[in-house]
Amino acid sequence: MSPVPSPVDVPSGRPAGVPTPGPGDPALARLSLNQATVQRWTLAQAVDGCLRAGLPAIGTWREPVAEMGLAKAARLLRDSGLRVSSHCRGGFLTGPDAAAALDDNRRAIDEAAELGAPCLVLVVGGLPEGERDLAGVRERMADRLADLVPYALERGVQLALEPLHPVFCADRAVLSTLGQALDIAERFDAAAVGVEVDAYHVWWDPQVYEQIARAGAGGRISSFQACDWVLPLPADTLRGRGMVGDGHADVRSLRRAVDEAGYTGDIEVEIFNEQIWRADGHDVIATLARRHVQYVL
Amino acid sequence: MSPVPSPVDVPSGRPAGVPTPGPGDPALARLSLNQATVQRWTLAQAVDGCLRAGLPAIGTWREPVAEMGLAKAARLLRDSGLRVSSHCRGGFLTGPDAAAALDDNRRAIDEAAELGAPCLVLVVGGLPEGERDLAGVRERMADRLADLVPYALERGVQLALEPLHPVFCADRAVLSTLGQALDIAERFDAAAVGVEVDAYHVWWDPQVYEQIARAGAGGRISSFQACDWVLPLPADTLRGRGMVGDGHADVRSLRRAVDEAGYTGDIEVEIFNEQIWRADGHDVIATLARRHVQYVL
Repeated sequence: MSPVPSPVDVPSGRPAGVPTPGPGDPALARLSLNQATVQRWTLAQAVDGCLRAGLPAIGTWREPVAEMGLAKAARLLRDSGLRVSSHCRGGFLTGPDAAAALDDNRRAIDEAAELGAPCLVLVVGGLPEGERDLAGVRERMADRLADLVPYALERGVQLALEPLHPVFCADRAVLSTLGQALDIAERFDAAAVGVEVDAYHVWWDPQVYEQIARAGAGGRISSFQACDWVLPLPADTLRGRGMVGDGHADVRSLRRAVDEAGYTGDIEVEIFNEQIWRADGHDVIATLARRHVQYVL
Repeated sequence: MSPVPSPVDVPSGRPAGVPTPGPGDPALARLSLNQATVQRWTLAQAVDGCLRAGLPAIGTWREPVAEMGLAKAARLLRDSGLRVSSHCRGGFLTGPDAAAALDDNRRAIDEAAELGAPCLVLVVGGLPEGERDLAGVRERMADRLADLVPYALERGVQLALEPLHPVFCADRAVLSTLGQALDIAERFDAAAVGVEVDAYHVWWDPQVYEQIARAGAGGRISSFQACDWVLPLPADTLRGRGMVGDGHADVRSLRRAVDEAGYTGDIEVEIFNEQIWRADGHDVIATLARRHVQYVL
């Protein structure tokens, strides 16, 4: 394998390839910054970063919202004029304490509603300690999801089931493919349960294009996230994601597929990567805006 | 996550759980040692280890066979009375040099025939450098497989397409699920192309049980391998496999499913793991024999 590329063009010296699109550029019309990509920034800094760079949307995370206070965060976002493309994240429904998990998810739904996010992303949870009955855990997760559905419907928040790459099946999400997520989502009203299509997690799936079409036909594409699969994986597998263009995933074809399936929402960039987190946030946004033009549009 | 367990019961002091089954024990009737599990051993040592422990079968690898010389290796195996459960491995059909790959695979088929292995395991190869057209690479791989089919049929060796866990999709195998492997295998005579069912690679797949049934109905289960999914993954992802019982995969249910699908072949233990490679080979075999009783039968 080739060495891991530098994930941020500026200030690494890597040729930028295309000029950075700026405020008002139609190329940015659907580009959203997921807060996890600039993890060291507060919500206020992330909002400011989006505004300066001309991004029209942001994907929020619970922790930085809580840090600012929900009401204040909602006001900041409304005043900024940014769209909130998604709120991250709920889920973890497979553990032994169902009541606590459900309570926590109801709070996350409330937050999404107050922030004006169309969906709450759910990472459903992995296998509890010592458990090998994967099918049983998956059914239990679906049962707990059912308990959340009326609450989500009442508040107008779509729950976005996120299939995670199978490398996370044991420890983070027993939901591994889009087809499997749709099998569960389709038990419920589309207004209540959709799916998150994250390029990083689904690019390898031989059925991904037919399942994207199925999701779109049912009005269940809650959100689309752009991110690349880079190798080698770091010691913490979770933090091994790459800037689009640095890896092996055909993100453009996936973006085209969600568009053809009728998705008109934002294209959110969510990258967990230590090197990117250490870089300057404004540089990170400039890089992802260029990569958006080069590899996504 | 809990710390990685010690993968070899003896001599680590971990309670053995059950007595070690010995030569003549019917529990061992289908247990095969894949040579990769005792990587530091020569073929002669591995054969001796199987005979001493009462294992009736061995899965061979090309490199140690070549080291001994093919004719001598074939004679040693015949004289030993061991079955050869599979020969590992061919494949890597996705690179730029098709002719070289096909030549090398024909040699591997010849070896499998001479060793008396019923199948040659194929790891099909990942994405060539800079390539993102996954569907195109998959089709190219299937075309090259087609070129090998007449040769495999003539020599009576079934090509076992091995879907690898999607964590290896970019760098080792664009074949990621059993269903996808069967979609390709079914283009050909079942005597020529089957599938490898490796618990490590398929345990997470929501469709695995229906696909095992489909594979069995078509006479296409070439081989079954037992191995566990343990976390965290090591720096070299390839070497992160665990002894059955140490991880999260429900190997027993998978073994039952292949049996119910009509598979009567050997149950091969193939583990890539530095810790296991450093342990004494006889201890490794004793552990896997016990784990076979505890977690597989």
